[in-house]
Amino acid sequence: MKLKFFTAILTCIIFATSTAAPHRTERTGSASPANVKTLLERLGYPADAKLLIVHADDLGMAHSINMASIKGLESGLVSSASIMIPCSWLPEIAAYARTHPEADLGLHLTLTSEWSLYRWGPVLPKERVSSLLDSSGYLYLTETEAAAHIDPKEAEAEIRAQISRAVALGIQPTHLDSHMGTLYQNQALFETLFRVAHDNKLLIRVSRQWFAAAPFLPSLLGPDDVVMNGIISIEPGVTAEGWSKYYADAIRNLQPGITEMIVHLAYDNEEMRGVAFDHPNWGSEWRQRDFQFVTSDAFRKLLQENNIKLVTWREVAKLMKKSGS
Amino acid sequence: MKLKFFTAILTCIIFATSTAAPHRTERTGSASPANVKTLLERLGYPADAKLLIVHADDLGMAHSINMASIKGLESGLVSSASIMIPCSWLPEIAAYARTHPEADLGLHLTLTSEWSLYRWGPVLPKERVSSLLDSSGYLYLTETEAAAHIDPKEAEAEIRAQISRAVALGIQPTHLDSHMGTLYQNQALFETLFRVAHDNKLLIRVSRQWFAAAPFLPSLLGPDDVVMNGIISIEPGVTAEGWSKYYADAIRNLQPGITEMIVHLAYDNEEMRGVAFDHPNWGSEWRQRDFQFVTSDAFRKLLQENNIKLVTWREVAKLMKKSGS
Repeated sequence: MKLKFFTAILTCIIFATSTAAPHRTERTGSASPANVKTLLERLGYPADAKLLIVHADDLGMAHSINMASIKGLESGLVSSASIMIPCSWLPEIAAYARTHPEADLGLHLTLTSEWSLYRWGPVLPKERVSSLLDSSGYLYLTETEAAAHIDPKEAEAEIRAQISRAVALGIQPTHLDSHMGTLYQNQALFETLFRVAHDNKLLIRVSRQWFAAAPFLPSLLGPDDVVMNGIISIEPGVTAEGWSKYYADAIRNLQPGITEMIVHLAYDNEEMRGVAFDHPNWGSEWRQRDFQFVTSDAFRKLLQENNIKLVTWREVAKLMKKSGS
Repeated sequence: MKLKFFTAILTCIIFATSTAAPHRTERTGSASPANVKTLLERLGYPADAKLLIVHADDLGMAHSINMASIKGLESGLVSSASIMIPCSWLPEIAAYARTHPEADLGLHLTLTSEWSLYRWGPVLPKERVSSLLDSSGYLYLTETEAAAHIDPKEAEAEIRAQISRAVALGIQPTHLDSHMGTLYQNQALFETLFRVAHDNKLLIRVSRQWFAAAPFLPSLLGPDDVVMNGIISIEPGVTAEGWSKYYADAIRNLQPGITEMIVHLAYDNEEMRGVAFDHPNWGSEWRQRDFQFVTSDAFRKLLQENNIKLVTWREVAKLMKKSGS
């Protein structure tokens, strides 16, 4: 499988392919006979409901990201977020998680360290997970380098350690996803992620639009896994002027089902510019634009006008458990 | 020995006790018969020379600190600085060290992690240095807690690993000192620091004013160790308005010999305020004040008017080696 495949998919805006085949596309992956309701029905919604998880990635990575993401969560327009356990600003967001148990916080499982001058290593001793490290002793800079070198057994040990570390700090993760999509880069890493998620009874970010490129994916899904109808994630190439229009178009075109809108929130300040000085994609101005859009009245109105209901990973997981499988 | 002792000493302004006994006080610690020249004579200066190392601590800890400290070094009024190896902003200052081999950069050996929401662990696997860690798995918050729990053997392994990590990243340290004075907290830790410094042929920050509280100290000094005449380091309790006067008085009162002036430079920005939000001592405004003073024309004039020569640890080490012992 091409290593870049999932990253390309993940960073594209993906709409539901069709509303004409909801039974096929909105069903959870497992084809057990008892599991014939559509996902929306299992969650107690009508078949044409449009549910959206507005999700901030990368919490714990920088103070700027923590502050903007907390502001986003508290605006009510960001419904969920996920935390990077190996980063130095983890204690700040862990303290927030402990004092805000209602916040929908998952883990952004981290196997890369992408900024050239601000970096981190694994949670486990480096000797135990040497395949995760580049020549400077940090996690790899890119998801493709990481996937090309990672021993899946070491990745599994590391992500289990990240979950344990989160729990030890008082974080009760509501879901899992993968920073930079590293764990979506090949079948072995996908299998690792599913095994760890299932063992911990946690939902993970999966989009049914990934099935074409990863035909093995449906076979990995358990009866309680939830497959997103699509993922909205802004792409490099969108101009600053086109930012709001990109999101507005995506929201107006939203199809019934559950969609996840992935945003990267930070303040464009000295710290964030220092982190991303050579990295305009997902950089400081990018994140400030995301922050401005998702906390805007325009976004709130768009959601209302298009009859979109914000949901959290916790709600989805709870409803799935209730509905049985 | 009282654990707080050296911290109290280190954070006080300390002047030379007397110029009447330069042979006793300016001599290096070793009493070998061949070593009868005063320190200033060995360095090739007249007996009344006033040498000052203006030293910025804590590089690598935060982007704000790196930027302000580099600016300080490049102003020519900060002659030296030292780097914290376990911190996430290390790659930024390591890159600077590689491209600025003339910069006088030592290692600020780090056995504490003092900010409540922004933290780091050791360089070595946690399992190997468990006595260095608090219950949350980071280095201790304070030097007294650290010294009360640290196994000196584990401290030694960790500081040797910090030196190795620095060298692997292309840093050629000119000297060693101890973040928050943790390695100056008791005799066993002092011995550890000296052993590691001697093995690596590196000078360490020691002031002869510490001898009264640590009578064992002279016996630890090797023939090439350099003992500072005193240390200037601003204390909690000095008001913002009194900042410049404090330093100006210290500079006007400087005695012949080598003195180290320890400063903590950062910009008072969102990152630094986030780091130090509950910690005004050595906090964000404190560091901004230090930055403003050491890069000011007033400081430059004070040095000129008082006939003070700025020196680096590298120059001192080189001259010591040349002069033999």
